[in-house]
Amino acid sequence: MFLALMAAATLSVGAGAARAEDGYDLWLRYRPVDGAAAVGEVTVLGDSPTLRAARAELERGLAGLRGGAPASTRAALLAGTAASPQIAALKLPLQGMGAEGYVIRSLQVDGRPTTVIAANSEVGVLYGAFHVLRLVQTRQPIGKLDIAAKPAVKLRVLNHWDNLDRSVERGYAGQSIWDWWKLPDYKDPRYVDYARANASLGINGSVLNNVNAKADSLTQPYLEKAAAVAEVLRPYGIKVYLSARFSAPKEIGGLPTADPLDPAVRAWWKAKADEIYRTIPDFGGFLVKANSEGQPGPQDYGRSHADGANMLGEALAPHGGVVMWRAFVYSHEQPEDRIKQAWSEFTPLDGKFARNVIVQVKNGPLDFQPREPFHPLFGAMPKTPLMMEFQITKEYLGFATHLVYQGPLWEEVLQADTWRGGKGSTVAKVVAAGAPGEGLTGMAGVANIGADRNWSGSHFDQANWYAFGRLAWDPNLSAAAIADEWIRMTFSNDPALVKPVGDMMAASRETMVDYMTPLGLHHIMGRSHHYGPGPWVAGGERADWTSVYYHRASPEGIGFDRMATGSNAVAQYAPQAGKALSADERFLLWFHRVPWDHRVASGRTLWDELVVRYSRGVDGVKAMRRTWAAMAPHVDAERHAEVAAYLAVQEREAQWWRDACIAYFQTFSKRPLPAGYAPPPHPVEWYEALSFPYAPGI
Amino acid sequence: MFLALMAAATLSVGAGAARAEDGYDLWLRYRPVDGAAAVGEVTVLGDSPTLRAARAELERGLAGLRGGAPASTRAALLAGTAASPQIAALKLPLQGMGAEGYVIRSLQVDGRPTTVIAANSEVGVLYGAFHVLRLVQTRQPIGKLDIAAKPAVKLRVLNHWDNLDRSVERGYAGQSIWDWWKLPDYKDPRYVDYARANASLGINGSVLNNVNAKADSLTQPYLEKAAAVAEVLRPYGIKVYLSARFSAPKEIGGLPTADPLDPAVRAWWKAKADEIYRTIPDFGGFLVKANSEGQPGPQDYGRSHADGANMLGEALAPHGGVVMWRAFVYSHEQPEDRIKQAWSEFTPLDGKFARNVIVQVKNGPLDFQPREPFHPLFGAMPKTPLMMEFQITKEYLGFATHLVYQGPLWEEVLQADTWRGGKGSTVAKVVAAGAPGEGLTGMAGVANIGADRNWSGSHFDQANWYAFGRLAWDPNLSAAAIADEWIRMTFSNDPALVKPVGDMMAASRETMVDYMTPLGLHHIMGRSHHYGPGPWVAGGERADWTSVYYHRASPEGIGFDRMATGSNAVAQYAPQAGKALSADERFLLWFHRVPWDHRVASGRTLWDELVVRYSRGVDGVKAMRRTWAAMAPHVDAERHAEVAAYLAVQEREAQWWRDACIAYFQTFSKRPLPAGYAPPPHPVEWYEALSFPYAPGI
Repeated sequence: MFLALMAAATLSVGAGAARAEDGYDLWLRYRPVDGAAAVGEVTVLGDSPTLRAARAELERGLAGLRGGAPASTRAALLAGTAASPQIAALKLPLQGMGAEGYVIRSLQVDGRPTTVIAANSEVGVLYGAFHVLRLVQTRQPIGKLDIAAKPAVKLRVLNHWDNLDRSVERGYAGQSIWDWWKLPDYKDPRYVDYARANASLGINGSVLNNVNAKADSLTQPYLEKAAAVAEVLRPYGIKVYLSARFSAPKEIGGLPTADPLDPAVRAWWKAKADEIYRTIPDFGGFLVKANSEGQPGPQDYGRSHADGANMLGEALAPHGGVVMWRAFVYSHEQPEDRIKQAWSEFTPLDGKFARNVIVQVKNGPLDFQPREPFHPLFGAMPKTPLMMEFQITKEYLGFATHLVYQGPLWEEVLQADTWRGGKGSTVAKVVAAGAPGEGLTGMAGVANIGADRNWSGSHFDQANWYAFGRLAWDPNLSAAAIADEWIRMTFSNDPALVKPVGDMMAASRETMVDYMTPLGLHHIMGRSHHYGPGPWVAGGERADWTSVYYHRASPEGIGFDRMATGSNAVAQYAPQAGKALSADERFLLWFHRVPWDHRVASGRTLWDELVVRYSRGVDGVKAMRRTWAAMAPHVDAERHAEVAAYLAVQEREAQWWRDACIAYFQTFSKRPLPAGYAPPPHPVEWYEALSFPYAPGI
Repeated sequence: MFLALMAAATLSVGAGAARAEDGYDLWLRYRPVDGAAAVGEVTVLGDSPTLRAARAELERGLAGLRGGAPASTRAALLAGTAASPQIAALKLPLQGMGAEGYVIRSLQVDGRPTTVIAANSEVGVLYGAFHVLRLVQTRQPIGKLDIAAKPAVKLRVLNHWDNLDRSVERGYAGQSIWDWWKLPDYKDPRYVDYARANASLGINGSVLNNVNAKADSLTQPYLEKAAAVAEVLRPYGIKVYLSARFSAPKEIGGLPTADPLDPAVRAWWKAKADEIYRTIPDFGGFLVKANSEGQPGPQDYGRSHADGANMLGEALAPHGGVVMWRAFVYSHEQPEDRIKQAWSEFTPLDGKFARNVIVQVKNGPLDFQPREPFHPLFGAMPKTPLMMEFQITKEYLGFATHLVYQGPLWEEVLQADTWRGGKGSTVAKVVAAGAPGEGLTGMAGVANIGADRNWSGSHFDQANWYAFGRLAWDPNLSAAAIADEWIRMTFSNDPALVKPVGDMMAASRETMVDYMTPLGLHHIMGRSHHYGPGPWVAGGERADWTSVYYHRASPEGIGFDRMATGSNAVAQYAPQAGKALSADERFLLWFHRVPWDHRVASGRTLWDELVVRYSRGVDGVKAMRRTWAAMAPHVDAERHAEVAAYLAVQEREAQWWRDACIAYFQTFSKRPLPAGYAPPPHPVEWYEALSFPYAPGI
């Protein structure tokens, strides 16, 4: 039996064609670990596409983890829903576990030690199966399990900013994985692996197309394409959503207006919703970017965001669909501090949204910067469910070639205290609580997934996809614990690797802040492509797309005064939260305009501290390279080489950020660098003259 | 040993992660075949990157082909160059084999039956190694080999129409495999597999960027990226070339002109060539598209193609580089029949090109249509070396989702008789002969390679890459023999598969001609994207980009009169060739304008025959689907499903071509369909109204 298994494995891949470790397997790598055989024989009760997926995953996973050894016949794994008499007989506490939770217990069943996975629904069984696999993959003991888990929020959704021509806005992992051209005729087997990876994290929704949407995505041919994707994802508990272009009634409906209060427009959307549900019976709903960065919206007709969102909600409601309405709005006709505008527009609408509408808010009030304070809306709309929007793809964080683990960034936001209901009202709690009553809750992540073989453009960017999914399930998980799991599943359980790589990941975000935007600086990257430093960016279409608007450097000092003396954006927070944030040196130049000689906590002047931090960022990348070089004995050659190559890019670009920013800001500070710090090798004009016409992701 | 090997294979891939047959392995699949063990132990004499590649390929290939069984110790394989004493001692006839040829002989060496691969150069050894592997893969007897092979032409080159933003013009296989953004820092391991696949065919050059070139590709950062690719390809005997934008001296050189007779321009190109060779010491040279479809060129300054080409040739000559100057030129200011223009512009320049310039001519005088007569330049420039340009990517042949094997198309062209030097002066001979003296010879193929996992966008399109490479090595190979090899290497040697799939491939091109452009029709596809039928395309920027320009349908008849009564394009051929082509019914509407009631060879009227042919094309695709369905037991599930899905697309689109073209042409013929032929289900307006805004490859 052992030999037969090995022979089969050998034949199936061909001895001459053993595949390299190319990252395709993600964290579902299932390489042999000690103890896997102890799980025993698998029985999944019942039969359905979802239960078959659970069974297949357990068999595939455990076979890989056992490394060809047979399962123990003395132990067993039993999985099923409460509808199965065998599970019901175990009387497990499933009442409170909802439609997606599960219980995992170590029990004696028919005289054998048995790992039982029980759930109210089939997808709960699937989630439980992935949980057991994760325990085995990470070498947790499985003999005395007593686990009950359910997701903190209802909607755990990836937002694909994928265009119908298969380009991906802010994508750094190749083309869209959605091959629209060949859909619905051809369903790439890769879609199944996408579904498996997401289900392993509990992600239950996927918005297939870019928020900067084309109306074509709502035409019948494209609905059929989306339906084909939905068919593949369905067994894995993942619903398909679409970004809806607000002006679609004009563009593909032939109407003269898209006014949300116009009866013909309302009728058009109702009919469109009916058509969608005929094509995709379990369609999730719409994501909408309206009246933002040139997108059409209800304000084009003098209507509010609530008018627009509620009209769509009304069309979807009979079918159980939801509207995720983005709060990322700002207008260049509006002279107000850009970061204040979403609060100004949305807080008056608190409580005015329909029951099936949720407002989707980016983690910070600007735009996915290396560091921002949490978005003040999280403390300001108690009657409205707010969905978190994180950006998994690294638009502002060095694209795919910088190693930046975002777990700490997201943890920092989720654990920030809004004081909305008094001390301890963390963003995580606000998001999980939703609005009073039984409304929606959710978390969205802008996907970093593309057609690249390794899915995310780099091996370590897989960790960001992983961390998003884990936090969407439980926003109170620690970034460090998530990284630890991911490292073990993706690379190995060898402590010689787990600890140093975990430390490297933990430090990576702060290192990136240091070499890009220390001390509260923000939005000083290259124009349009957002690649590399661009603190000199000025002029052009709109002031709030420039760097000088945000850093305001002059011979007198630097920073954006957002206190009462300035834009007073700080007043959008609860007083205690505003006080904490504005006193935090990490946000110094976000909230304050300070002279170059201002003394910071270290005792240094602001100027000296800036130089020190930028330099520390470069040193941090050098340390990462050293750590990774030492991992060579513990990582396969192919993945080690790719990561090493990217770290070399990152070091060069960190140095470039440091040198360009110091050269630029020095033209205002007119101060020397502190002793021991090398001056930039070129004058600022040299950095300004660099151009990158073929940067990806635009 | 046997068990140890199997265990190693098992561990290296993980029992739970056996990879599907996704086509990545191409024809280098190396699955077990009978007889592989008989090859014996491998010895490759000497050590160098190329010899290591040969050794690695033999070891990898034979290990796979043996299926884990050990090599016979009673036999041996010995490979090396004539520089090795052991090879020299065998006194094999290597004198005439040139720098790339090889000899393979079955000999007794040291008392053992030995397969000897000998060559004058290391790359010859590599080519010979692939030859032996091909013999084993296709189950040829290897006991009594006596082979001497060398390439018919010097330059065997892929043209990548790949842009610097990683899009591919007329590419249907995903993004460019050249990840310019991450080069030169990161060299995707895939580049090695690209090199292996090409070397297995004898392809020895790769033009990395689009003929519609950006000058940026000649800047130092991009030269360094090209150098990184060159470094990977070098051991495999493949040189890197670049498409050069003729106006580069203005765009990146800061000169006011790109006039090829201007001394500053000439000096700029000389300096640029020197810079390139400092970066890429074995750089191959330039491919140039000049004064064609809006590209800059010497005619912008009143100079000839020869002036332009020779200037570049002069810059490259000291380094041994060559210029491939495309003859695909036409101008919309020129009222002459478009297909005549290249002949008119180039024949006066015969003999005027520098020694290191070769003129690259598309197979036909229009543009890679389903069927065209051979290009008249092949019979008309005896003093100039002419390089064949085939289009492997299927711009006009249904993109990646139509199964069209191009072997028969290319064979038809190569075996056509130009009568240049009397009867029997086939295009193949003209191309292989070059110009008098020891000038250049070559064949180029516009690549169908992209980042898609299966490389070419579909499994069967791999056969077109394969066939191009094989024909570039030996233009007199038969399309059927090439298909037979490819099927065996790619799928299996099972006769239950080889014969029917071979027949299907052989018929596929004629089937496609039938459902797209029967009886000599041409250029009646959709505008711009070239997807689907568009016989109604009229108006717009230029007449010769419309369909009506070419088919000239009216109530009186259809076809383009290119006889003496019309444009007299036929006179560009030798009289005997022109007579043969114009009398060939396959080119009827290419050369003649005929009334709808004209009787064709079948006895039917032209109109009836058109309907019959279009319908026969659809039937042909139905037959392909039946054939493929019957192959299910003989092909792995993943590849079988993909091909089946694409064939379904092809049938639907063949039907669409038939119906749309019949509906359109019937508005002129005003005749009923012959009995038994179903009328199109929609009026012509329905077909005209279809639009495809996100078609790939533009």
